[in-house]
Amino acid sequence: MEVGVRVPLGPLPLLRYSTPELLSLWSESNKFRTWAKVEWAVAKAQEELGIIPKIGLSERLEKLINDEEFWEDIPRQVEEIEKRYDHDVLAFLAVIERDIGDIGRFLHFGLTSSDVVDTANSLLLKRALEYILEELKLLSDALFEKAKDYKYDPVMGRTHGVFAQPTTFGLKFLSFYSEALRNLKRLKDAIEEVSYGKISGAVGNYLTNPPYVEELALSYLGLKVEPLSTQIIPRDRYAFALNVLSLIGSFLERLALEIRLSSRTETGEIFEPFGKDQRGSSAMPHKRNPIKSERLTGIARLLRGWALAENESVALWQERDISHSSVERFVLPDATTTLHYALRLARNLVKNLVIDRERAKENIEKFGDFYLSSVLLMVLTEKGASRDESYAWVKEVSQNSFEKGTSILEEALKHEKIRQFVGEDELRRRLRLDPKIFVDKIFDRFSAIE
Amino acid sequence: MEVGVRVPLGPLPLLRYSTPELLSLWSESNKFRTWAKVEWAVAKAQEELGIIPKIGLSERLEKLINDEEFWEDIPRQVEEIEKRYDHDVLAFLAVIERDIGDIGRFLHFGLTSSDVVDTANSLLLKRALEYILEELKLLSDALFEKAKDYKYDPVMGRTHGVFAQPTTFGLKFLSFYSEALRNLKRLKDAIEEVSYGKISGAVGNYLTNPPYVEELALSYLGLKVEPLSTQIIPRDRYAFALNVLSLIGSFLERLALEIRLSSRTETGEIFEPFGKDQRGSSAMPHKRNPIKSERLTGIARLLRGWALAENESVALWQERDISHSSVERFVLPDATTTLHYALRLARNLVKNLVIDRERAKENIEKFGDFYLSSVLLMVLTEKGASRDESYAWVKEVSQNSFEKGTSILEEALKHEKIRQFVGEDELRRRLRLDPKIFVDKIFDRFSAIE
Amino acid sequence: MEVGVRVPLGPLPLLRYSTPELLSLWSESNKFRTWAKVEWAVAKAQEELGIIPKIGLSERLEKLINDEEFWEDIPRQVEEIEKRYDHDVLAFLAVIERDIGDIGRFLHFGLTSSDVVDTANSLLLKRALEYILEELKLLSDALFEKAKDYKYDPVMGRTHGVFAQPTTFGLKFLSFYSEALRNLKRLKDAIEEVSYGKISGAVGNYLTNPPYVEELALSYLGLKVEPLSTQIIPRDRYAFALNVLSLIGSFLERLALEIRLSSRTETGEIFEPFGKDQRGSSAMPHKRNPIKSERLTGIARLLRGWALAENESVALWQERDISHSSVERFVLPDATTTLHYALRLARNLVKNLVIDRERAKENIEKFGDFYLSSVLLMVLTEKGASRDESYAWVKEVSQNSFEKGTSILEEALKHEKIRQFVGEDELRRRLRLDPKIFVDKIFDRFSAIE
Amino acid sequence: MEVGVRVPLGPLPLLRYSTPELLSLWSESNKFRTWAKVEWAVAKAQEELGIIPKIGLSERLEKLINDEEFWEDIPRQVEEIEKRYDHDVLAFLAVIERDIGDIGRFLHFGLTSSDVVDTANSLLLKRALEYILEELKLLSDALFEKAKDYKYDPVMGRTHGVFAQPTTFGLKFLSFYSEALRNLKRLKDAIEEVSYGKISGAVGNYLTNPPYVEELALSYLGLKVEPLSTQIIPRDRYAFALNVLSLIGSFLERLALEIRLSSRTETGEIFEPFGKDQRGSSAMPHKRNPIKSERLTGIARLLRGWALAENESVALWQERDISHSSVERFVLPDATTTLHYALRLARNLVKNLVIDRERAKENIEKFGDFYLSSVLLMVLTEKGASRDESYAWVKEVSQNSFEKGTSILEEALKHEKIRQFVGEDELRRRLRLDPKIFVDKIFDRFSAIE
Repeated sequence: MEVGVRVPLGPLPLLRYSTPELLSLWSESNKFRTWAKVEWAVAKAQEELGIIPKIGLSERLEKLINDEEFWEDIPRQVEEIEKRYDHDVLAFLAVIERDIGDIGRFLHFGLTSSDVVDTANSLLLKRALEYILEELKLLSDALFEKAKDYKYDPVMGRTHGVFAQPTTFGLKFLSFYSEALRNLKRLKDAIEEVSYGKISGAVGNYLTNPPYVEELALSYLGLKVEPLSTQIIPRDRYAFALNVLSLIGSFLERLALEIRLSSRTETGEIFEPFGKDQRGSSAMPHKRNPIKSERLTGIARLLRGWALAENESVALWQERDISHSSVERFVLPDATTTLHYALRLARNLVKNLVIDRERAKENIEKFGDFYLSSVLLMVLTEKGASRDESYAWVKEVSQNSFEKGTSILEEALKHEKIRQFVGEDELRRRLRLDPKIFVDKIFDRFSAIE
Repeated sequence: MEVGVRVPLGPLPLLRYSTPELLSLWSESNKFRTWAKVEWAVAKAQEELGIIPKIGLSERLEKLINDEEFWEDIPRQVEEIEKRYDHDVLAFLAVIERDIGDIGRFLHFGLTSSDVVDTANSLLLKRALEYILEELKLLSDALFEKAKDYKYDPVMGRTHGVFAQPTTFGLKFLSFYSEALRNLKRLKDAIEEVSYGKISGAVGNYLTNPPYVEELALSYLGLKVEPLSTQIIPRDRYAFALNVLSLIGSFLERLALEIRLSSRTETGEIFEPFGKDQRGSSAMPHKRNPIKSERLTGIARLLRGWALAENESVALWQERDISHSSVERFVLPDATTTLHYALRLARNLVKNLVIDRERAKENIEKFGDFYLSSVLLMVLTEKGASRDESYAWVKEVSQNSFEKGTSILEEALKHEKIRQFVGEDELRRRLRLDPKIFVDKIFDRFSAIE
Repeated sequence: MEVGVRVPLGPLPLLRYSTPELLSLWSESNKFRTWAKVEWAVAKAQEELGIIPKIGLSERLEKLINDEEFWEDIPRQVEEIEKRYDHDVLAFLAVIERDIGDIGRFLHFGLTSSDVVDTANSLLLKRALEYILEELKLLSDALFEKAKDYKYDPVMGRTHGVFAQPTTFGLKFLSFYSEALRNLKRLKDAIEEVSYGKISGAVGNYLTNPPYVEELALSYLGLKVEPLSTQIIPRDRYAFALNVLSLIGSFLERLALEIRLSSRTETGEIFEPFGKDQRGSSAMPHKRNPIKSERLTGIARLLRGWALAENESVALWQERDISHSSVERFVLPDATTTLHYALRLARNLVKNLVIDRERAKENIEKFGDFYLSSVLLMVLTEKGASRDESYAWVKEVSQNSFEKGTSILEEALKHEKIRQFVGEDELRRRLRLDPKIFVDKIFDRFSAIE
Repeated sequence: MEVGVRVPLGPLPLLRYSTPELLSLWSESNKFRTWAKVEWAVAKAQEELGIIPKIGLSERLEKLINDEEFWEDIPRQVEEIEKRYDHDVLAFLAVIERDIGDIGRFLHFGLTSSDVVDTANSLLLKRALEYILEELKLLSDALFEKAKDYKYDPVMGRTHGVFAQPTTFGLKFLSFYSEALRNLKRLKDAIEEVSYGKISGAVGNYLTNPPYVEELALSYLGLKVEPLSTQIIPRDRYAFALNVLSLIGSFLERLALEIRLSSRTETGEIFEPFGKDQRGSSAMPHKRNPIKSERLTGIARLLRGWALAENESVALWQERDISHSSVERFVLPDATTTLHYALRLARNLVKNLVIDRERAKENIEKFGDFYLSSVLLMVLTEKGASRDESYAWVKEVSQNSFEKGTSILEEALKHEKIRQFVGEDELRRRLRLDPKIFVDKIFDRFSAIE
């Protein structure tokens, strides 16, 4: 049957957005090596517990596992045998046995394929998530650094895309840092969720290996025992992890959106770094397009789609069906690799963002200080003016200010009705915004966290 | 404009799958009452802190909040005023002020709409999740009870829908209990995640209310302070919660799938309870269809769709855009209400499931004990037979057993090659499966949890 | 069992975003009335074909169907009986029979519940899609009108949010009109896809009603015969329709995004209409927030989630399982009603958009005519300059222009290297953009369509 | 920056589920070759229209395009230059110009990158869909053949997994054939939807190439002119196509579900083909697991996730943002390649399915002919019995039949109340089901289609 070829291609296939670490982790070679690790752990436990004779099996396997070169050609060899068997684990075992000879009689002793594949899967996914954790930490550090660097630098806060009230660049970055912290917490939970293995046999009844083999073997691999496995680890664990990856994607999307909106030509407050030799557009050489942020935006969508496919794979049939497998062959490597890449990209982006403090200030000033209208509303209330009247007066004042480019203070001072309630001194004292005060207070909350 | 009517209908609208608690929680009346709670907490804090005069505002509000009847007609009143204002919070305030009179001058003092709406939202979502937690606990208890009741009762374990090896009904239920425990943990995390409020003003800069008002007010409401809010609480918190609800849906889907597969006519091991008067099908009065399980299956799909919409709402524009609002008007009440209903339905289902122990035993016996082939494979390996030969012999033996309806033991005893390696006694001792051993061991793991 | 209450509530439930037409279409009353239509069509066919005696059943049913008041109380009556039967169709039949008396003996003759429910469902969904088609046409007309009104009015075209080259408001609107036309085509296909009914019995084997009853009955209802139905109409038809609704949602999202981006304070080219009495924000009375566009954005997300749930409901078990039903109880009314509302909202929005032609011109002029750099690049190539050199010169010229606010022409005329290749006249002739030419050409393509 | 490496790996990357045709189509080499095709078509049109001099550019490009070997190394060369430029199209042009020398001065004349990339994309996606169309046709033929082969062979129809009434294997296959036909129609529409190109410049204003160049160039490529393009082809076209691919996935999922349910051990009516050497399970050598069908099930989930990501990419910013690009780098090749593979897999599966006619008959007989109860209900109604009484009597009869394993006819003949209404002859005549009649009628509907 000509379907499902996995032979090498003339042209190099798309590797898309990836990092060396994750490509290597999810390589076919490393998959087989990880299977061998599980076989090793079980053999070692069985030797230790007197279930199989100590004729050197686990030692031999350990040597193999440590021999990195050995694994390079294994995928090709397994593939060849798989053509006949149509069963990857049996083909893998045949290749290993061919190498280790007679000592291999007790290889895979009492194991079912899923004991090996699923436990190895946990090891790979756990490792992938740990890589992502490291990158997320680095990004989160970069965000905190940026927040401190621009702590008090004012920038207009925008709601609905419309000027609202000033905030600071520092708080913008701190907001992303804050979301990163939440995601770090979730990701640690996800790592815990997937750190389970199973050596419980074909339906989880320990027919061929008693529970204490499972316990000992998994301890060698740094995994916990799934308290109740069927043929496989329950997939809600993976779905939880994928949902967290998707949330991290949405976090990057929000960050990307901030950059994209802030780098719009009319706004011009934040720009992506732009290499000297880099060519923006063949037709428009002057453009500084936020293409990395747009890339992150697209990646967030991909992560949602991948998470979805895994979520549909929680409800498997009874003691297992294998429909999750085609899903996971894509989504586990794709989601983790792409996100690892995206986090690294985002870190480089954040570190090298070009922030135009001057432009931000100009933008604030150009549109006046209408945002102080809400303070004026309060002051009037304090002084006893009715809500409806106050509302109307403040609307007048703020529209005047907006149209004439004057300050709210100026307009309020000229407004007779308002002046009947509030004196000049108080207006001068209240109608201003000092970032220091709230910025310090908010930053304090995060210093406490560290 | 004729769009967006929310006037009462002649015909009763669809309420679909719901529970009284959740319908009441998400009612328009309760929404406004919850807004009033936030206004109360802020007023009380401002009074306490000397920001507004103690003229009885918080006391008056407290009374209103405790007067359940008061709220019944409020939605209609707010709607009327909203037609003019096109702004729901201002319309709400007008209604309340109309009632409390002059004392209302300091109502909503220094607040922005989102301080009220978003904090109220947290209160509602938190409460909804707590209701779900209670139901999930009850379902999880029911599953554990069922697991204990059927602890040792054998049933064929099926992988790929094909007979694999026996397990027990107890373990099947325990497997769902185990997944329920994981979801309880996740749900508690989700509750923590949404237990945050914000009284930080239009862009989170505390322009009109200082942080200590926020802290005190939120403490009255049992909420924590969002360390960095913009105009709103960051939406990754809600998305996390929706993802957990979706995972609980998938858990119910897996449970439903077990029931549906086990109640297929040819299998006939588990049935949904069937009322005396209930009529299964107008054309086929004898059928016992697992329609409640099928309903749960559909609900799981809905939950995935709703979660998706919230996940797309994490990346809002800068200090906020309100695109999440139309999403949340549907998904927060729909997802929580439907899941609350589904959990209750599932509990009733689990408690009253009809389990046919006899049929399960017959099914196991009808298809022989071929599953012991894997044990036979092990024994042969222990005795020194080669893997490839053993594999072939065991295949012979198991196919004979399957086709003739004999036991693996019988066939193995007759197999000359096998007998050259293993004696009769050992074959008799090894070729059997005693549920006691593994079942006890696995149950022990869960007793430890309790 | 206390679950699944559908009793009236004290507080009015959320009706969210809806229109009177669709609320009425999906009301419980109309559902039962539509069931009655199917019963009528079958009875009439059976009378016509001599299968049941002509004792006036179809006539009686027709009268009932035309009596609108009759249906108002039916939901309550059915609900009462359903409590006993736990089967909605049987309860419905009991209510109808109670009314029509002995003549009802041949009601539902040889029918299975799904014949009625599924065929009625097709009628409802088809009608809902037709309503949406009407609204989409009206919106598409409004877009075309707007396109013609602003045909030549220049506005900066933005790619990546960055100024690229001028286009016109007319083309912007025409681009949405063009997408609307594609969606109209898809929606007509979707209507065709769902215009099928089935009266083929419990598994589609016509055990109790021959195919010619189906053909005649469906012809009375304006439906086609599903060529091969099982117990139900295959659900890929509905999923196709939901996907089209989701695409229409994404179309509205793109339109909303244009409005939101264009109404950002710094851009200020397009605004949502703003009512006189409308209050934008309790704290910031001056704001003109694009909240309707943001609402449309959220609705697009909802539609994607609803479509997803239906897509998961295509693969039902063999001759049917009913898991699609809980899905469709939500997604069919929710998706169609919300989209109908959204289209009407969008039409009102488009018709009343406030477009600031002057601001758009200022924006173009403020940032110079750097976009002509690409023309300059071409001219240099035509004249024989090397690509790399040309690229460098043009970059110089365009950066000068951008920084100094001069025109590309001015800068090019001063650039010695460029002048060696191109004369002043040619530069003057080529370095300008006349919207007339391309706008007319593009509009012509659409006039041809009409 | 170390991110985003696309260098060759030691270990072969995962190619997963693929076919040679699609891997080759989406290879980097073919991408660049397709870009060259667009450059060729534009150059030829410009030569033809006298816009660039006829110095042999298009001829030279044509030669290159036809030289397959030339393209093998191009990806590597482009990658090298791209490291400096960080712009793939410019790097590609540099490589081509290096080859064709001075003649290349008019290469890419007046083009913007997106003219090339987006038009090439249309060519690739269109071709991919055409490949899928061919495979879908072959699968649909295989289904129709199978339907004819098993036209009258009875099999129990199951609703809710519970025995309902007999149908035939022929109808089961015909039902999938019927869904395949609908998908063929949708897929042809999708091909039409993506058969559009654009040579309209940076924002679609034809600044550098007039519309008649676009028309002529696209005609050489077999594409239609996008009536209104911005910088790119509108993405609703792609989303429509992805939705259709997702629907085809759900169709395969439904087919897979039929196979999986029918091959459950207790049912045993349909089996996946099983190779001689194939090894089903290392622990259970006797198992015949429907793993290919399970693989198809997982692929359907992936397709839904991929479609989702593209649907989120419809609403781009104004004249374009590039967030769709990272999405499409994955979903276009992944979705089309995996589906092409899945269709081929499904065809092989369908062609070689093992169908156990005898077992199917036994299953029908084992559970009696209770399904005739609905006919009995009709007969009683015809004879004037009341609905409620009839219902009760039929319930008795059918439960007796089910429990005792007798026929409905037998039980009805013994039932006194029934016998008061219906004679023996009529009972004998009516209480049977002849597949011939309905099967022929339904098949006729499809013969008419062909």
